[in-house]
Amino acid sequence: MTVATALAQYNALQSKLSAYNHAMSLIFYDGATTAPKKTADNRAHALSVLSEESYRLTTCEETVSLLEFLDAHREELSQKDRRSVELSLKDIRELQKIPMEEFVAYQELLVKADDVWHDAKENNDFASFCPILEEIFATTVRFATYCAPEMHPYNYCLGKYEDGLTMEQCDAFFAALRQKIVPLIKRITRAQQLDNACLHGHFDVSSQEKFARALMRVMGIDEGRCGLGTTEHPFTTSIGSHRDVRITTNYSEEDFSSSMYSVIHEGGHALYDMNSADDLAYTNLDGGVSMGIHESQSRFYENLLGRSEAFVAHIYPDVVACFPEQMKGYTAQDLYRAVNRVEPSLIRVEADEVTYCLHVMVRYELEKRAVSGELAVRDLPTEWNRLYREYLGVEVPDDTHGVLQDSHWSGGGIGYFPSYALGSAYGAQLLAKMKQSVDVDACLHAGDFAPINDWNREHIWKYGCLIKPGELLESALGEPFDPTYYTDYLEKKYSELYSL
Amino acid sequence: MTVATALAQYNALQSKLSAYNHAMSLIFYDGATTAPKKTADNRAHALSVLSEESYRLTTCEETVSLLEFLDAHREELSQKDRRSVELSLKDIRELQKIPMEEFVAYQELLVKADDVWHDAKENNDFASFCPILEEIFATTVRFATYCAPEMHPYNYCLGKYEDGLTMEQCDAFFAALRQKIVPLIKRITRAQQLDNACLHGHFDVSSQEKFARALMRVMGIDEGRCGLGTTEHPFTTSIGSHRDVRITTNYSEEDFSSSMYSVIHEGGHALYDMNSADDLAYTNLDGGVSMGIHESQSRFYENLLGRSEAFVAHIYPDVVACFPEQMKGYTAQDLYRAVNRVEPSLIRVEADEVTYCLHVMVRYELEKRAVSGELAVRDLPTEWNRLYREYLGVEVPDDTHGVLQDSHWSGGGIGYFPSYALGSAYGAQLLAKMKQSVDVDACLHAGDFAPINDWNREHIWKYGCLIKPGELLESALGEPFDPTYYTDYLEKKYSELYSL
Repeated sequence: MTVATALAQYNALQSKLSAYNHAMSLIFYDGATTAPKKTADNRAHALSVLSEESYRLTTCEETVSLLEFLDAHREELSQKDRRSVELSLKDIRELQKIPMEEFVAYQELLVKADDVWHDAKENNDFASFCPILEEIFATTVRFATYCAPEMHPYNYCLGKYEDGLTMEQCDAFFAALRQKIVPLIKRITRAQQLDNACLHGHFDVSSQEKFARALMRVMGIDEGRCGLGTTEHPFTTSIGSHRDVRITTNYSEEDFSSSMYSVIHEGGHALYDMNSADDLAYTNLDGGVSMGIHESQSRFYENLLGRSEAFVAHIYPDVVACFPEQMKGYTAQDLYRAVNRVEPSLIRVEADEVTYCLHVMVRYELEKRAVSGELAVRDLPTEWNRLYREYLGVEVPDDTHGVLQDSHWSGGGIGYFPSYALGSAYGAQLLAKMKQSVDVDACLHAGDFAPINDWNREHIWKYGCLIKPGELLESALGEPFDPTYYTDYLEKKYSELYSL
Repeated sequence: MTVATALAQYNALQSKLSAYNHAMSLIFYDGATTAPKKTADNRAHALSVLSEESYRLTTCEETVSLLEFLDAHREELSQKDRRSVELSLKDIRELQKIPMEEFVAYQELLVKADDVWHDAKENNDFASFCPILEEIFATTVRFATYCAPEMHPYNYCLGKYEDGLTMEQCDAFFAALRQKIVPLIKRITRAQQLDNACLHGHFDVSSQEKFARALMRVMGIDEGRCGLGTTEHPFTTSIGSHRDVRITTNYSEEDFSSSMYSVIHEGGHALYDMNSADDLAYTNLDGGVSMGIHESQSRFYENLLGRSEAFVAHIYPDVVACFPEQMKGYTAQDLYRAVNRVEPSLIRVEADEVTYCLHVMVRYELEKRAVSGELAVRDLPTEWNRLYREYLGVEVPDDTHGVLQDSHWSGGGIGYFPSYALGSAYGAQLLAKMKQSVDVDACLHAGDFAPINDWNREHIWKYGCLIKPGELLESALGEPFDPTYYTDYLEKKYSELYSL
């Protein structure tokens, strides 16, 4: 075998695997958006076959020897091929440690879990979801032990979403945030509260959808390659490659800002995914490199841009055009203040920027303890409610507005939540760096996202998974990560808003 | 190998293939309903990989020897397994005759063709579609020659949709219809025309969708297993098994009856597909047995039931509830007469029952000549327009309302059209038989489809592909097929309506 023939085989394999990913992502997306209600078992059947086949292709002897051959010749490979092989080998060495039947059974379990979670959330019925959630936690721990027996299983979970992240780092990071955020919230609580009445009323779904599409256009999202769907919990997924991306949202008829900011958030994910360099399509380097970096983009657009005075001023006429009756008598400044009102609340995805990280901390604490075996899954609701009381000072009325609100656990995403807080902090530092060369406020005022998107494309998006997340971030920032950019940003913005 | 182990292997293979079918149907459905506009190439990539893999599984040596082993032991198999093996062998022997690269390239071509056809139809631009349509016709002829060199290629095409059907039979069948229908149309043209003003006005899409769902419920379609989407051209597809079926419709804001009857038509297909015996799921016996039988069900619900006086009387209050303003002053009898107005027109899917078969005859003539090499694909528009003038007496204003109106050719469905006419005729004879034991009119008056659906399930649906279409039809009818049931039905119904 020559390196050239091996590479050709490897590329063909990658291309094949991306077709399986296409099918599986689409089946998942269909289940969340369009599929009739009683078809989960039918989807589970197809997914189990396809994931088994994809697993077999990924781990079969032929693939392993191909990868080992290429790895042995790594010096002769381009940077791109070297990185791709390195990531494949990493994946394969992990997958090999998980018995195939268990891997396939877990995929099937997740499909069913999604369905059970939806019903449980709708009916405020944690008990019906508990057994399947127990199985998800148990499998997560078992797989972590298979893959990295030397590691604490929760560190393994964290590392899946942010390479190298540990509980120690998270503890330190969250402590730093808490030290600044908790006193800030106290000062805000004592100040004159911001009014957000303009967000409330009746907003019909079709006007909201029209507005959502307007937001996507302003953000510079190519609608020819990015769809918009409706789901219980908003998410973004690529279908097979960065050439077809879907975002979803959920419309609240009582508050248009809920879908507005979920569209901007998912739109940030979509921009990142859609803007991998085109030659990364159908390889394992296509799309975002880690969930921390991913959330740095989504929360960048959602908050740092989307809740800025300049952007709100720009988008205000669109809001008025879509909701003329409801916005009567409210100025752009009213809207800016409304979307930045700070108020400890129940739902993470609707939380303001200041209290948001406290929502994440609750989940982090619970996951950490559940994975460590210190907390039984059946006790999650009680502990959830206790921590919401302790961290946010709110009483959780029911599990629908508590432990059942997020789709992450039912999707197996244990260890994901810290990415949101990390991403928020990355984003603040990225914005500071971007402002050295781009007049961000002027762009937002003008609704011209091109210079902002260009900066992100050049420094982050185009690389896909070519560069490790830590290196990518540091190279974009030009300095090490420092969460004080984020806490300073929050202090400054909210001191002004609340005249502290 | 024992028969038992061979059967276990065979069932595993069938189950695997159905997962590939699930993925491919869903990718197609997504492309037609939901996918962003510029993603056809991305879908083509995934489909080419999946269809190649499915082709490989179907035709590999291992599968062939397995099937030959089972075929050699056919006497030991259950009727179900015997029929399944027989169909698989038939497919495989055909597929083996088509070089794999050509098969895969054709699947990719069809994905692109769908996109090109949509744009061509939208822009009245046959020229942009012509090269790809030429390729589709050429490939159809080439594949027919590979598979059945002894046969006229168009007979091979016809047989794909209705086992054993030939041009000779079609010619005779259409001649019989023409002999009765053409004079009937002449008598109708001389009579007092029926008024259909109540169908026209402005009907918003969301009310039409609400009405479509009401129709599905009345028809006894389980919405938990049957979705409703929106597409350019309505269709029905199973997703992996009869446990998940999707129908689509197209809403005309000027005429609600267009989507109404497409929903009932596709609903008939869906009922057939959804009601295969449950143990046929994930086998090649799941779903309808031929397109002629399929259309006998769809056109049965659409016309024989859906345009009957009894059904229109039953559904009238729902129409009024959805479109109260537009229906003001119109009675159920007005609606009945409106949906049965006979008028030679341009669009097949909107044609009345009497002229419908003439639309089919145009397509049949053109396909037959194009496949035979007597007509160049580039000349289809001119010939289309000429035949519409000759058969229907209408002038085709542009290709959007002419040769580009249907999706069948862009989907490779050459030879499909005659099924519509055959199905219509099968349906009339089935209705006559059903009426011997079911009081169909009383059921329709009461909106109680259960006894009708039960009859169809017992006599047709539950068999899936267990029985050959000809045998299935004759066993349901209790006598040979006879198109005079259909022409008699048309004569009687329209003589009454038009007081001939």
